[in-house]
Amino acid sequence: MSEHAALSPVRLTMREGPGQPDPSPALGALYQGFERELLVPLWTEIGDLMPSSPRSKASPHLWRWERLLALAAEAGRIVPVGRGGERRAIALANPSLGGRPFATPTLWAAIQYLMPGEDAPEHRHSQHAFRFVVEGEGVWTVVGGDAVRMSRGDFLPQAGGHWHAHHNAASRPMAWIDGLDIPFAYATDSQFFEFGRHQLSAQEKGTPERSRSERLWGHPGLRPVATAKACWPATPLLAYRWADTDRALTDQLELEAEGHAGTVSPGHAAVRFTNPTNGRDVLPTLRTEMHRLRSGAATVARREVGSSVFQVFDGAGSVTVGESRWEVSRGDLFVVPSWVPFQARAAASGLDLFRFSDTPIFEALHAHRESADPADIPPVPGAV
Amino acid sequence: MSEHAALSPVRLTMREGPGQPDPSPALGALYQGFERELLVPLWTEIGDLMPSSPRSKASPHLWRWERLLALAAEAGRIVPVGRGGERRAIALANPSLGGRPFATPTLWAAIQYLMPGEDAPEHRHSQHAFRFVVEGEGVWTVVGGDAVRMSRGDFLPQAGGHWHAHHNAASRPMAWIDGLDIPFAYATDSQFFEFGRHQLSAQEKGTPERSRSERLWGHPGLRPVATAKACWPATPLLAYRWADTDRALTDQLELEAEGHAGTVSPGHAAVRFTNPTNGRDVLPTLRTEMHRLRSGAATVARREVGSSVFQVFDGAGSVTVGESRWEVSRGDLFVVPSWVPFQARAAASGLDLFRFSDTPIFEALHAHRESADPADIPPVPGAV
Amino acid sequence: MSEHAALSPVRLTMREGPGQPDPSPALGALYQGFERELLVPLWTEIGDLMPSSPRSKASPHLWRWERLLALAAEAGRIVPVGRGGERRAIALANPSLGGRPFATPTLWAAIQYLMPGEDAPEHRHSQHAFRFVVEGEGVWTVVGGDAVRMSRGDFLPQAGGHWHAHHNAASRPMAWIDGLDIPFAYATDSQFFEFGRHQLSAQEKGTPERSRSERLWGHPGLRPVATAKACWPATPLLAYRWADTDRALTDQLELEAEGHAGTVSPGHAAVRFTNPTNGRDVLPTLRTEMHRLRSGAATVARREVGSSVFQVFDGAGSVTVGESRWEVSRGDLFVVPSWVPFQARAAASGLDLFRFSDTPIFEALHAHRESADPADIPPVPGAV
Amino acid sequence: MSEHAALSPVRLTMREGPGQPDPSPALGALYQGFERELLVPLWTEIGDLMPSSPRSKASPHLWRWERLLALAAEAGRIVPVGRGGERRAIALANPSLGGRPFATPTLWAAIQYLMPGEDAPEHRHSQHAFRFVVEGEGVWTVVGGDAVRMSRGDFLPQAGGHWHAHHNAASRPMAWIDGLDIPFAYATDSQFFEFGRHQLSAQEKGTPERSRSERLWGHPGLRPVATAKACWPATPLLAYRWADTDRALTDQLELEAEGHAGTVSPGHAAVRFTNPTNGRDVLPTLRTEMHRLRSGAATVARREVGSSVFQVFDGAGSVTVGESRWEVSRGDLFVVPSWVPFQARAAASGLDLFRFSDTPIFEALHAHRESADPADIPPVPGAV
Repeated sequence: MSEHAALSPVRLTMREGPGQPDPSPALGALYQGFERELLVPLWTEIGDLMPSSPRSKASPHLWRWERLLALAAEAGRIVPVGRGGERRAIALANPSLGGRPFATPTLWAAIQYLMPGEDAPEHRHSQHAFRFVVEGEGVWTVVGGDAVRMSRGDFLPQAGGHWHAHHNAASRPMAWIDGLDIPFAYATDSQFFEFGRHQLSAQEKGTPERSRSERLWGHPGLRPVATAKACWPATPLLAYRWADTDRALTDQLELEAEGHAGTVSPGHAAVRFTNPTNGRDVLPTLRTEMHRLRSGAATVARREVGSSVFQVFDGAGSVTVGESRWEVSRGDLFVVPSWVPFQARAAASGLDLFRFSDTPIFEALHAHRESADPADIPPVPGAV
Repeated sequence: MSEHAALSPVRLTMREGPGQPDPSPALGALYQGFERELLVPLWTEIGDLMPSSPRSKASPHLWRWERLLALAAEAGRIVPVGRGGERRAIALANPSLGGRPFATPTLWAAIQYLMPGEDAPEHRHSQHAFRFVVEGEGVWTVVGGDAVRMSRGDFLPQAGGHWHAHHNAASRPMAWIDGLDIPFAYATDSQFFEFGRHQLSAQEKGTPERSRSERLWGHPGLRPVATAKACWPATPLLAYRWADTDRALTDQLELEAEGHAGTVSPGHAAVRFTNPTNGRDVLPTLRTEMHRLRSGAATVARREVGSSVFQVFDGAGSVTVGESRWEVSRGDLFVVPSWVPFQARAAASGLDLFRFSDTPIFEALHAHRESADPADIPPVPGAV
Repeated sequence: MSEHAALSPVRLTMREGPGQPDPSPALGALYQGFERELLVPLWTEIGDLMPSSPRSKASPHLWRWERLLALAAEAGRIVPVGRGGERRAIALANPSLGGRPFATPTLWAAIQYLMPGEDAPEHRHSQHAFRFVVEGEGVWTVVGGDAVRMSRGDFLPQAGGHWHAHHNAASRPMAWIDGLDIPFAYATDSQFFEFGRHQLSAQEKGTPERSRSERLWGHPGLRPVATAKACWPATPLLAYRWADTDRALTDQLELEAEGHAGTVSPGHAAVRFTNPTNGRDVLPTLRTEMHRLRSGAATVARREVGSSVFQVFDGAGSVTVGESRWEVSRGDLFVVPSWVPFQARAAASGLDLFRFSDTPIFEALHAHRESADPADIPPVPGAV
Repeated sequence: MSEHAALSPVRLTMREGPGQPDPSPALGALYQGFERELLVPLWTEIGDLMPSSPRSKASPHLWRWERLLALAAEAGRIVPVGRGGERRAIALANPSLGGRPFATPTLWAAIQYLMPGEDAPEHRHSQHAFRFVVEGEGVWTVVGGDAVRMSRGDFLPQAGGHWHAHHNAASRPMAWIDGLDIPFAYATDSQFFEFGRHQLSAQEKGTPERSRSERLWGHPGLRPVATAKACWPATPLLAYRWADTDRALTDQLELEAEGHAGTVSPGHAAVRFTNPTNGRDVLPTLRTEMHRLRSGAATVARREVGSSVFQVFDGAGSVTVGESRWEVSRGDLFVVPSWVPFQARAAASGLDLFRFSDTPIFEALHAHRESADPADIPPVPGAV
């Protein structure tokens, strides 16, 4: 090995196989030349780089809510929140992604935990974020000075570029999950971050029932004329309340029971959180949805390009992700990697599932693809 | 005049003036040739066809609700509703548009009146329509089999191409206004119409509080996933309820009082009815809005390309349209022609104004233009 | 008739018929009330306003080029060009549109004629325009100071809002056709107009072979990076040259002869002039195309919403427009009203047809519809 | 360390520093719990994941054309082309990306080499690709059966999903560069691949001067009407010829010399290859451009989100990428990582630079950002 090649990160090995040149001294010399010049041939890499369909680097995996919560509570006791660390957020690390805090190659999912009276300091970043509350209440997220209440079932999108802080106004700790596109921004080198103020004003620490954003944007089909010329790629509505989500899901199942369209498939209701200014996904890189399965019902098994993270919001059931199958209940989180078949089935209790995914990235680039064709989905052990 | 020219509708007259050729026998012969060959020169027409800014063929005009209602009630007594006439609808005829039922060159506005127990038969047409209810209740509009309740303050869009009928389930007559783009479709030769069934089924004559469309689409920011791939140029939400509209307007004024953005201008709140699938206007050719002026407040005087029809929903005030000025109260209707300055001012009671316009046509064609520049708007007699 | 009703333009007549109320004194009184209050009922108008499919107010009609040209040449002798009259343009007046200079309800088509050395003064207007040259050369259109040569076969779009003048630099008169959306802007009250300078500079009167716009935009698939952030609803390319158009049509017919796709239907090649910044129609309200029929070939008979004007560019053939049938040759102009079936057939010489239409208006508003279904197109006398 | 934690890829280390909790036994136990449960806190990762601006994992780097070509020629002698290996393509491996064949985190750039008479077998994949020819001729790329000539200066886009093969019809080897979005598809798990036929037909091995795609789509501003309803996210035009590109660049510099707009900045002409069906980038994930600097001219120094690969097409000059500065000439390739300032300066010979980048990804997701603000770009050693 030459000196230059020794410094190169490129390492090429002659091997026999279909599409591979026969090993020979000349080939060895050529590969050394490649290493020295920082070159890699397609023929040694094509199987990894260009599979016939996505073979995700991530694995299906399940995190139990009770264990997350216990560790987060312990962090609440011993890890302070403040400038520099910014948030007491603890992220899911997919077991196949090298120990990095990546739930999937594109998605970040974390439990965040705030003690009574605590503030998480203001900052802003280009990554898109949201909060989803599986249980509890008492924290207000303050976005551009607008205090937004967080309560069980609420979904709070947080578009990139907005200043935000969190404040726990209650006498008990509160936990919720954060979803972001941090791994995507990291993979594509496209992130910006800025520190904000250390303290919110007294007014910003108020605890209004409804945020200003809800008062402006939370009326179905109604747009403030004052904003009519504005065009936002992300939603200006900062809270989607559980009462609305719950009623929408209930309505779909009742319509189905009356013989009308509305559900995704029998017994499977679902709503997508959308940007009222364009009817599209609530954030440019993240799709977010709430699904409800009636007692005993199942989703249609399907696979799609892109990855998802699910959290059980209520009820219980079983989920199948590729060759994995888990019984799940409130708070449990699991990931579905790209092109891995997924199916959920509700127990007698019914099952409410919150889901977020990177689908808008692929749709924007005309690269999305999905399939519910059985021929396209090989039989999965444990699937019902 | 030759025989051919005698049959021609073209009539040309030599006249003196800037840009006109001097009258002469040769010019007279040329003009006769033009008439015979169905030709018209630009130079005789340019002043009419190409003014420096829109000089609407329509006039500002006011219709008093009590007179409309009295005539509609009389029509209720002596004019039956049925196949062929289709609707007991009585349209505003702008005094400058030749006695045709055109409120403006593009907009149709009518009062519709239905007696107790009456049905208006099912039909469908390519023209886009809506209903707005200034007072009363008891009628259900049945759209594709979905019965939609109509009550004071409700706005019911009706996209072109959908089957629809009306049914009065109450023991009293009911009146409301219809808005359509009939004159635009007529001017551009683009309309289709089809008769439907003579009778609705018993189920369709039901009187549900909420329509199926509201149960699917009436939740703020939430889209049924089952419809996620559909793309509609017009809204699938068939009713925008007064309770929502009223609260949205109240919220805007309260935000303003607290020092926050939200209103169009001081004391002037307004919401636009939008299509939740794309955030745009509720119908491809019609913009529809509800405006609220706080006691004593006024809108900013402005003019824009395109015409509007307003109906006073509640309260009282004065409106200025070009050189016209009227005191208005509940139910009164008036038109604002293209590029005519408009301003409204609320009396002590405050003023709620429903407005619809043809603005989406001009925006879609990149031809919209508006101005609140005083230099661009000559002083108008009576303007405050 | 009351005094008020006497001043009203509304005139209502009781008549018997399906959907009409029985004549009676009470009905007569009601109709008088309607007249007085400027109201018109739907039931007397619905047949005219809401036909089952478009029944155009315009008629099919043919104008012979030689007669237009003779009259334009006579106008060249006796009608000066200058400020006020602006252009020596003589417009087609559809025989069913009341003698107005409207080829169809939305389209203006005129022959323009400029004597040697003459200038048509600079102005600008919101109406979109183009020039098409069926024969001759020697005039330069000067758009925003950019002199654009006009020669046989060239198509020159002229987006609304740009200053433009014309200059005949040759020793012979030149004629061409102008197409605009003047009737549409007139019907919708949306037009602006402004006078420019009386004289062009010496440099602007230059006679370059290629305009600046062609040098920037006339390269297939290549966009100047300097303009990359600009977004224009109308094309920045000011000339589409005949050599390109001719070659594109020839290529399509040769591809067809080799067994490949490319033509619209057998023997029928066609290209659309497009805006290179968005791939859409060259102007927001006007579609423009060149069609070529091989010797003996015919177009598929079809009808569509919206109207067209055709000019024969070369060759000869027969065209059928509804119940009209004409033999046509170079320069002849004819109109196809909305929803009237159209078919063209080439004589042995082949047939090149330039066409413009208002289709983008209907596409932008989701109101376009077309049909080549024989069941949808009643047999037309004279159709081959 | 517990047994579970031992199997976990997560490794957490207590350390002191701003925003870090003080090391303690309790913290150590917490971190072990995180490792065991596959969790990673934000506070240990935020500096890497959320920098204030993109800190690319890639490095600026230069590859000399002569060395690439020599190694490719040697590969031509000893590495066969065929099914399985698919292509004799040798990719740039950025020195900071772990020896993987990634020029940048999103872009693949390779030299491809084909011996006389050789065929690269047919396949298709979802990744978008293009070929650019810095020298030579004789190969035809066969896309869906359409043989497309490749010659010096030509740019040949190849949208994902199309079958394609290559055939060297000449008596000499030929080299060119391939650009693809392979690393992006790999990072996001979104790729599909399929083998095609082993042999092309005799007809497909033809060597036409112009491809069928050029005959249909290669006419400036002209769209085949037969395709009018089709909507393609990637260009249907399979070759952008050097003669056109060269003339467009020459025109821009001549316009500048005459005092008119057209260039990006003084002495810097540039064209972008665009999709004629929508005016946007030629491929949904790849921007491609040709730049020309007049003798002695320089580009404005700027940085932007996303990465680029440049190849010198002609001439010579110096380029500055962050803290690197190189003298470059024909064929040399270099990368500009995300947010690294870039400037090029032409030698007396002038400088033609081909560039491709991942910008459309960021624009589609509203995440693009660029700056030429000197305050935003720290002084770079060697920058002029």
